[in-house]
Amino acid sequence: MGVTIVGVVGLGNMGLGMAGSLLRGGFTVIGYDPSAARQDLSRSAGVRVRESLTAVMEEAEALVFSLPAARDVEAVVTSGGLLARRDASVVAIDTSTSDPGTSRRLAHVLAEAGHALLDAPVSGGPAGAAAGTLTMMIGGAAADLQRVRSVLEAMAAKIVHVGPSGAGNVAKLVNNLLVAAHLVTAQEALRLSEAAGLPAEAALGVINAATGRSAATEVSIPRWVIPGTFDSGFSAGLMRKDVRLALEMAAETGVALPLSGLVGQLWRDAPFADSDDFTRMADFRRET
Amino acid sequence: MGVTIVGVVGLGNMGLGMAGSLLRGGFTVIGYDPSAARQDLSRSAGVRVRESLTAVMEEAEALVFSLPAARDVEAVVTSGGLLARRDASVVAIDTSTSDPGTSRRLAHVLAEAGHALLDAPVSGGPAGAAAGTLTMMIGGAAADLQRVRSVLEAMAAKIVHVGPSGAGNVAKLVNNLLVAAHLVTAQEALRLSEAAGLPAEAALGVINAATGRSAATEVSIPRWVIPGTFDSGFSAGLMRKDVRLALEMAAETGVALPLSGLVGQLWRDAPFADSDDFTRMADFRRET
Amino acid sequence: MGVTIVGVVGLGNMGLGMAGSLLRGGFTVIGYDPSAARQDLSRSAGVRVRESLTAVMEEAEALVFSLPAARDVEAVVTSGGLLARRDASVVAIDTSTSDPGTSRRLAHVLAEAGHALLDAPVSGGPAGAAAGTLTMMIGGAAADLQRVRSVLEAMAAKIVHVGPSGAGNVAKLVNNLLVAAHLVTAQEALRLSEAAGLPAEAALGVINAATGRSAATEVSIPRWVIPGTFDSGFSAGLMRKDVRLALEMAAETGVALPLSGLVGQLWRDAPFADSDDFTRMADFRRET
Amino acid sequence: MGVTIVGVVGLGNMGLGMAGSLLRGGFTVIGYDPSAARQDLSRSAGVRVRESLTAVMEEAEALVFSLPAARDVEAVVTSGGLLARRDASVVAIDTSTSDPGTSRRLAHVLAEAGHALLDAPVSGGPAGAAAGTLTMMIGGAAADLQRVRSVLEAMAAKIVHVGPSGAGNVAKLVNNLLVAAHLVTAQEALRLSEAAGLPAEAALGVINAATGRSAATEVSIPRWVIPGTFDSGFSAGLMRKDVRLALEMAAETGVALPLSGLVGQLWRDAPFADSDDFTRMADFRRET
Repeated sequence: MGVTIVGVVGLGNMGLGMAGSLLRGGFTVIGYDPSAARQDLSRSAGVRVRESLTAVMEEAEALVFSLPAARDVEAVVTSGGLLARRDASVVAIDTSTSDPGTSRRLAHVLAEAGHALLDAPVSGGPAGAAAGTLTMMIGGAAADLQRVRSVLEAMAAKIVHVGPSGAGNVAKLVNNLLVAAHLVTAQEALRLSEAAGLPAEAALGVINAATGRSAATEVSIPRWVIPGTFDSGFSAGLMRKDVRLALEMAAETGVALPLSGLVGQLWRDAPFADSDDFTRMADFRRET
Repeated sequence: MGVTIVGVVGLGNMGLGMAGSLLRGGFTVIGYDPSAARQDLSRSAGVRVRESLTAVMEEAEALVFSLPAARDVEAVVTSGGLLARRDASVVAIDTSTSDPGTSRRLAHVLAEAGHALLDAPVSGGPAGAAAGTLTMMIGGAAADLQRVRSVLEAMAAKIVHVGPSGAGNVAKLVNNLLVAAHLVTAQEALRLSEAAGLPAEAALGVINAATGRSAATEVSIPRWVIPGTFDSGFSAGLMRKDVRLALEMAAETGVALPLSGLVGQLWRDAPFADSDDFTRMADFRRET
Repeated sequence: MGVTIVGVVGLGNMGLGMAGSLLRGGFTVIGYDPSAARQDLSRSAGVRVRESLTAVMEEAEALVFSLPAARDVEAVVTSGGLLARRDASVVAIDTSTSDPGTSRRLAHVLAEAGHALLDAPVSGGPAGAAAGTLTMMIGGAAADLQRVRSVLEAMAAKIVHVGPSGAGNVAKLVNNLLVAAHLVTAQEALRLSEAAGLPAEAALGVINAATGRSAATEVSIPRWVIPGTFDSGFSAGLMRKDVRLALEMAAETGVALPLSGLVGQLWRDAPFADSDDFTRMADFRRET
Repeated sequence: MGVTIVGVVGLGNMGLGMAGSLLRGGFTVIGYDPSAARQDLSRSAGVRVRESLTAVMEEAEALVFSLPAARDVEAVVTSGGLLARRDASVVAIDTSTSDPGTSRRLAHVLAEAGHALLDAPVSGGPAGAAAGTLTMMIGGAAADLQRVRSVLEAMAAKIVHVGPSGAGNVAKLVNNLLVAAHLVTAQEALRLSEAAGLPAEAALGVINAATGRSAATEVSIPRWVIPGTFDSGFSAGLMRKDVRLALEMAAETGVALPLSGLVGQLWRDAPFADSDDFTRMADFRRET
């Protein structure tokens, strides 16, 4: 028998968006969020909001975590509600980006209690969550993924099973490290171009037709930097966190990454706030 | 009346390839190269090899330069043959990658003598030259480009008029600086991925479906690095030269490029020879 | 009444050296080390070796920790022996280099139990420990330092009270970050000098008489690099650990350090083992 | 017979200072400067100002060049006055900092005409020039140095014969590359220290008593940065020029210097003008 009741823990922009996709997919969605305002919004959207986290953890047939940081997931997992359950084996889908070590550890803790954890970081932002068109990079056992495939398919347009527990987060961090780097390389290249007399728009035309192209030059810069809107919806603070996690992963594995290390320092040093859009990094016309 | 006689100066792999494309396009091609071996090869291909550079410069209705370095072009331009001509106004197409300042200076010298120079660095390599499918980034006056459009079209599948004199080289250098950077970012990201337990092939699958992608992860690495062939046909020495030219352009214009500066140092420091393929830089499994 | 019985926890090269200095200073020294060989050596030197860590913790009037890492100190402090004591207030002197946050936390734990912790990282190496000529950078309350001043003076020629708890380790990490950086700057400068035709010895003569000098050019390179002995007694692994701790402190405080970040990556990437001498970094004649 | 008439070319702060020291040393000083104001000032000081550069070049028994850049020295040397002289062999002392290649080339040109050039970059600034207490790093033949030793001794407290032609400039550039680097390392270390709660003054006390010290932490920062005067007398623009020359020397010799390359970029990027004092770089309290 498949899953019919999905618990969503964390009903922020991402969590509520995914809850909506799950409702449209025919699932019964129960949920929890500490904010009364988010609870109200979620009820209006059709989510059966429970009074406590524990209630969700005890009732759901599958769980979706949409929480700010790894330590929040850890707090939820070790809070007891799920660990104490013996009536069913539950697959928890952790959509936050976190370090792979934490994913592996929590997966182990849940496995010992008869449950499972998939690390399933997403790309696509609030719009993708609301539309059910996220990309999900999944780490965990294929059998566990299979048990919640219908749940995942309600939320994501693209599901990539990357490898065992932790592999989803490794893939996400490696990808985002490249994104962070390419915004810097593009910013420098376009500053150079303009200083040498070639407008950035003309340079981008050549670069995107030639071999210097990246998702930064093809998408981010034409869409959010050249028009000056800086509204991709992904914050600089989140990118800083991902770069930091990627570099900590490098430190732990003993890999030296001279260029990426400097990328990390430049992100930390850049003259914009964590709340600004992450595409500010590619603003080749800003003062330095 | 259009151009019918094209002079090709420098009949190496690139020059002879372009000469062949011009012959197929119906042009009469005269040419010069100091090497007797290249002269023989060119004659077999249908090029009317002249005994001296001056002879080519005095007879051609349009010129194509395919020479190793800016100083070679400078030597040819200032050698007198073309500067002394008064019977016709000739457009010289310089396909070498060089610094924009040299291009502008030579364009000025030729303009004073009634001729014109287009800086027209190419991408596509020997294969593209032979097939007539090069991409050309052109700096110079639109009117001059118009006068040799048929010549350019015989050699290139894609002709981008970037801007005034020098702009072709600015675009080429900016593009290649990005290429050089992206090989390093990809190498570091894939080394990190493998150290963290995720095989590079799996990481590439995610990256190219997501936002970390670049021409390095989409083309160079799958084609020349993963199979271990390292035979793109573009040498590390040429890329080192282009990175050096780009960084000199930055120094002259006073632009600080912290990340690109480190890219340049890493290229200089990398454990492979100038004669090796430039894709060696992305070899994420090499010893460091 | 002053301290007469000092407990030394950890009787390695540093710990036994300090124990010897304390014995010469007239103290009764009790100690513990898990290794039987180190116990024998310590007994021969006059240390009254106890059978357990707890025994030392329960008997000493002052404690000296000489342990490899912060987590070892943490394990010792929280093991109970000292925390349970109510007969006296004991000052523990932690001579290991660790992160200031751990120092502050352990100082707090001990303070709640009526004891005190000074973070007191040292410089001077095994030779300085044996001779009683260490330099100690001390973080903690002045009153606590005063209570063990005679103990410190038996071990150190120079005692610097840097600030409150943790400050000793901040000072040590900042100092060692500079040491790590200056070995790299000196190595690069001397490689450049030799490549430009000026022997390193001649360049050092000028540098040390002029404004480019550092402890690296004045001491480390003439003493351990030029002669090729590489036997300063401080290992590359310990320096890598200190650089990592300094950069983690930067990450936690949100300070961007572009150059120091690259220093850290270059230390990680350098072609020598953790067991090699740290002055290998300045080997300007090694292959890169 | 020794030198009695010394020609000083360039009578700015440095040149006039050295002229004064030469006058006090008993030499007859003839000189030239294009500025009427500097001519008047020089006459008041006792310099016999000549109406043209050529007049100085034709009359002096030894020459001192004090000019802004290598190309100025080149213009003076190749202007003919000295090259045409056959009545005596003259030693020219070039006190400007320039690239060693230019020094070697000009030394060769002068040698062919029977004269000699010493590259003799100085440290000590206007104050040292006026007091006759400069440090001079000299490249050239020992015999040529011997011929003008009395001239050098009137200007400098310390004369270091580094090696053959060009070696003086190699030594100066290598030294100043280290100075430039150490201002950055010190600035980062002190920013980190303050962010971690340890005031810079306290950190400097430890660093200068321990192993992280450099001339930056011992002299520049206590003297010009902590008091906030930033008046060492050496400009950021001159330091930027020296760093650029050092890195060009690295590029020409093919040496990769990852850290120094980033030092150069950070100097270019730093938020102060060329006319500001070079110690601004160490301002660890400035906004970034």
